[in-house]
Amino acid sequence: MNYYAAPVRDLRFVLEELLAHRSLNLPGFEEATPDLVEAVLEEAAKLAGDVWGPLNDVGDKQGAMRQADGSVTTPDGFAAAYQAYVEGGWNGIGVSESLGGQNLPEVVASAVQEMLHGANMALGLCPMLTAGAIEALAHHGNDDQKAVYLPKLVEGTWTGTMNLTEPQAGSDLSKVRTKAIPEGGHYRISGQKIYITWGEHDAAENIIHLVLARKPDAPEGNKGISLFLVPKFLVNDDGSLGERNDVTCASIEHKLGIHGSPTCTLSFGENGGAVGYLVGEEGRGLNHMFTMMNEARHKVGIQGIGVAERACQHAFAYALERTQGRSTKARGGKDCTISDHLDVRRMLLSMRSRTDALRALALYCAAELDTARHAENSDARQTAQARADILIPVIKSFSTDQAVDIASMGIQVHGGMGYVEETGAAQLLRDARIAPIYEGTNGIQALDLAGRKLQRDNGEALTALLKEVAATVEQLNADPALAALGRGLAAGLDDLKTAQAIVLAEGQDPDSGADAVQAYATPFLNLAGHVLCAWQMGQSALSAKAAIDNGSNDPFYTAKMRSAEFAITQWLPVGRAQRAVIEAGVQCLSDFEVH
Amino acid sequence: MNYYAAPVRDLRFVLEELLAHRSLNLPGFEEATPDLVEAVLEEAAKLAGDVWGPLNDVGDKQGAMRQADGSVTTPDGFAAAYQAYVEGGWNGIGVSESLGGQNLPEVVASAVQEMLHGANMALGLCPMLTAGAIEALAHHGNDDQKAVYLPKLVEGTWTGTMNLTEPQAGSDLSKVRTKAIPEGGHYRISGQKIYITWGEHDAAENIIHLVLARKPDAPEGNKGISLFLVPKFLVNDDGSLGERNDVTCASIEHKLGIHGSPTCTLSFGENGGAVGYLVGEEGRGLNHMFTMMNEARHKVGIQGIGVAERACQHAFAYALERTQGRSTKARGGKDCTISDHLDVRRMLLSMRSRTDALRALALYCAAELDTARHAENSDARQTAQARADILIPVIKSFSTDQAVDIASMGIQVHGGMGYVEETGAAQLLRDARIAPIYEGTNGIQALDLAGRKLQRDNGEALTALLKEVAATVEQLNADPALAALGRGLAAGLDDLKTAQAIVLAEGQDPDSGADAVQAYATPFLNLAGHVLCAWQMGQSALSAKAAIDNGSNDPFYTAKMRSAEFAITQWLPVGRAQRAVIEAGVQCLSDFEVH
Repeated sequence: MNYYAAPVRDLRFVLEELLAHRSLNLPGFEEATPDLVEAVLEEAAKLAGDVWGPLNDVGDKQGAMRQADGSVTTPDGFAAAYQAYVEGGWNGIGVSESLGGQNLPEVVASAVQEMLHGANMALGLCPMLTAGAIEALAHHGNDDQKAVYLPKLVEGTWTGTMNLTEPQAGSDLSKVRTKAIPEGGHYRISGQKIYITWGEHDAAENIIHLVLARKPDAPEGNKGISLFLVPKFLVNDDGSLGERNDVTCASIEHKLGIHGSPTCTLSFGENGGAVGYLVGEEGRGLNHMFTMMNEARHKVGIQGIGVAERACQHAFAYALERTQGRSTKARGGKDCTISDHLDVRRMLLSMRSRTDALRALALYCAAELDTARHAENSDARQTAQARADILIPVIKSFSTDQAVDIASMGIQVHGGMGYVEETGAAQLLRDARIAPIYEGTNGIQALDLAGRKLQRDNGEALTALLKEVAATVEQLNADPALAALGRGLAAGLDDLKTAQAIVLAEGQDPDSGADAVQAYATPFLNLAGHVLCAWQMGQSALSAKAAIDNGSNDPFYTAKMRSAEFAITQWLPVGRAQRAVIEAGVQCLSDFEVH
Repeated sequence: MNYYAAPVRDLRFVLEELLAHRSLNLPGFEEATPDLVEAVLEEAAKLAGDVWGPLNDVGDKQGAMRQADGSVTTPDGFAAAYQAYVEGGWNGIGVSESLGGQNLPEVVASAVQEMLHGANMALGLCPMLTAGAIEALAHHGNDDQKAVYLPKLVEGTWTGTMNLTEPQAGSDLSKVRTKAIPEGGHYRISGQKIYITWGEHDAAENIIHLVLARKPDAPEGNKGISLFLVPKFLVNDDGSLGERNDVTCASIEHKLGIHGSPTCTLSFGENGGAVGYLVGEEGRGLNHMFTMMNEARHKVGIQGIGVAERACQHAFAYALERTQGRSTKARGGKDCTISDHLDVRRMLLSMRSRTDALRALALYCAAELDTARHAENSDARQTAQARADILIPVIKSFSTDQAVDIASMGIQVHGGMGYVEETGAAQLLRDARIAPIYEGTNGIQALDLAGRKLQRDNGEALTALLKEVAATVEQLNADPALAALGRGLAAGLDDLKTAQAIVLAEGQDPDSGADAVQAYATPFLNLAGHVLCAWQMGQSALSAKAAIDNGSNDPFYTAKMRSAEFAITQWLPVGRAQRAVIEAGVQCLSDFEVH
């Protein structure tokens, strides 16, 4: 039993009931009606379930292979599945019409991404990287670059990559050494980049590499780094493909998971230098990259949720099928499936509840991104962007940490069958395990939140967001049947406010502030993740309860009630413990001598 | 950097300082002097570090292979490394002299096991299973069986297996269907067993399978199951090896990890029936198996600790070597290794602290097992056995869950390097992931604790153990420098007592009791694990502080202080949240309809 059925109903619940389709009311989305969105989700579900999903296992077993000539062959069916995606117009779903896209809101694009990653995370990475390249070029490319590269990237007939990491420059990109030597109107790029996702493959005509490099006279550190566009095949004036550029795949990594995704070491300039073109301003390469990385981080969070959903489906199916033991006297006292044992059910509900919560939060953030880009009022745009900026590190980091745990719990539900590779449960853990690492490690996300994002406005954006949480507490408290959830959420909110005050106060100390931020970053992000997820589950309980009060007998809503109850009463307390962790202070870590 | 250095100093700290070598004072261990123990640990460290450790990676990459003739080839070097172990007399280290063993206390045997599992978990499984067979035969075999099989098993020239699981009978062994038909003085065994660790291999002359099966006239359920001994090669009257028995390896599993350990499907009786001999009483097979399983569970916990230790060493080495970023102004503001970043240090200290705590608790339990077997006074023996009975499910379950998390955190410390297989960090997660599953899933352990073990004496054994925890609180409170740790531990103790009261009160309800036990089992075990580990770290702080107060400048003791502080102030709070989880009640799980 290793299948994937896209969770259309769950996604629609968030889009329609929790978010009340608010993105659709923004200027520019006049044509995106609820009916259209529904149709899009249903079509995406078919692509995910029927085309991409069945290849997940193939991709894992075969893996991407580097051939003797340096080309990379993707697993059987991947190229065709990617073509089906391109032909369906899916690559441009969230891209504006002016760039040739479908111009649907980010919430819808995010929902589609979740399905595709749940179906096949390794394949989903290919368009995820292309989206980054589109973003970078749309914001920072010149008109010529936009004209030549964007249409093909938006269609998906060409794919994109992000070339940041070098052996000595990972989390600290200031150490990038790749060289860019000016030559006429372009540059000659030489150097080695590692961990380049989909850096070379056979699924598209051309690959557009975005590369961080330095000019020979550039200063040391971040300010010497510029962004360059390096196509695999140079593009002729008429738009046809020309010469092969001087960039080759030196090797691909043997990884724990996402075997279907080629992770390449790329050598630039082994034969005189790869032709590259400066994108944006000289010396602003890192800033240009970070523009798109913020949104790429949201997408990694979504990816984690996709895999978590698949792990849920997998575990539920197995638990409903596997007969073992007898139910308790109170539950009938007869041979039963393991889903009847409450200790197994705890795992199932924990997996489901967390996946529900992470999804709701990630889509809430997508709706904020829609507002940030499309609201008429510039204050509204700025407020939404500030809120998204706070949420994105939480979504990237918390969703992926939880996804790893959910996938691991999915193995546990399967017992011995979870440990053998044939059931597919183990693959989900192996695949998910990359997500806390790439696109900025989860430690980097935590530093971004507790350091840059929180300190720069003295906590203002988070404080404003927490007022929304407080409003949800009020709403829950107003219904006696939900008041216990209100109390739970209020306690979590209080912890997060206290923690925020500590991180702000100690973080702004001119001497010890940086240490405090480093020490508190991870527990603070973890606490924020729990509280914000619990908040979304409070909203979810309000919606589900309203539906039930309105006479619905749909078991979907009762399941959502259980999911919300579990999140607030049994999951949130674990997160709340991070307040005590922060209150324990910095000293112990600071004094610890690593040897 | 993928090496393993056995943590002799850490093990000696527990044996000598925390346990004050108390096992050595028991009758029967007169020859086991502290000097001898030290020499044994040093020798075991050489075997682990020099012989077994370097094969860990080979075992993972090659894996065990089933050949066309049904034989199984172990990875290069495994057979020789096992022979080195046999020749060193290591297999009988904890076995009494009367059975041909070295007669060292369980604490010492456990310390040696930790080293061997840390060095090479896949290979370590082979003698672990043999130890189970020795235990079963020593307790339940007849004199003939003991005479024929025990000497070879104790030497290790023959290895043992435990054949329990069948496709329809995993956690619920009452569903075992393998048949045993009487024939003269023996039985003919037929059926299929799955997940048989080291079920077939080339590292020893003979394999002694212990098999659960039913006689044709046996009743349904547990009471119809008997235990049989089925040798791979029948043994002639003169002790030489005779005919090949009718048991073959039908396949080996393709697993997430422990690739070097052949996990076999064994077919018994495809050609008329394998010759088997009844062990112990008819219809008591499950009871006989459980005798040894209790101790095997302790060994699985130890195994988790071995892997956790290796993950620590790995992560520390990488963090001390990897230069990235700059230290904070307060810490010098210059290029530094990642071990200088406090967020990374949080991971390192968390890994180290938890490993220290788990080790101390597991060895404490081993010391209780020594008392249970060797104390002169029968009350002392019974009390110690009851205490070990409570501790063993905690050690199995909590150590292995934590080991998975520690190994996963080890990957995270490595960043991208953790996700590529060449560094070896990923293997540790893949290997560790089996430990929460086999030898009774961690869910089964939790049910054993919260159900059988807690309910049968109305919590008496646990209550007695918690008095020891309270005594440690007193000792900590008596030293102003340690009083914060005393307060932390006291709070945890209070939570555990409260949780115990709930689990006892609700668990004994004749109608809903079984549901309550199922629902509370996992959070209760988790809470107990945290509190008992924190207790051991309180003891550890007392010992380290005493050494420092006595003038020691050894950085070992200051590191142990940090480890204890972290465990009690930053790790225990997370566990304490399980009280709230239990207080949230059963209803939500009970109402949740899985579909």
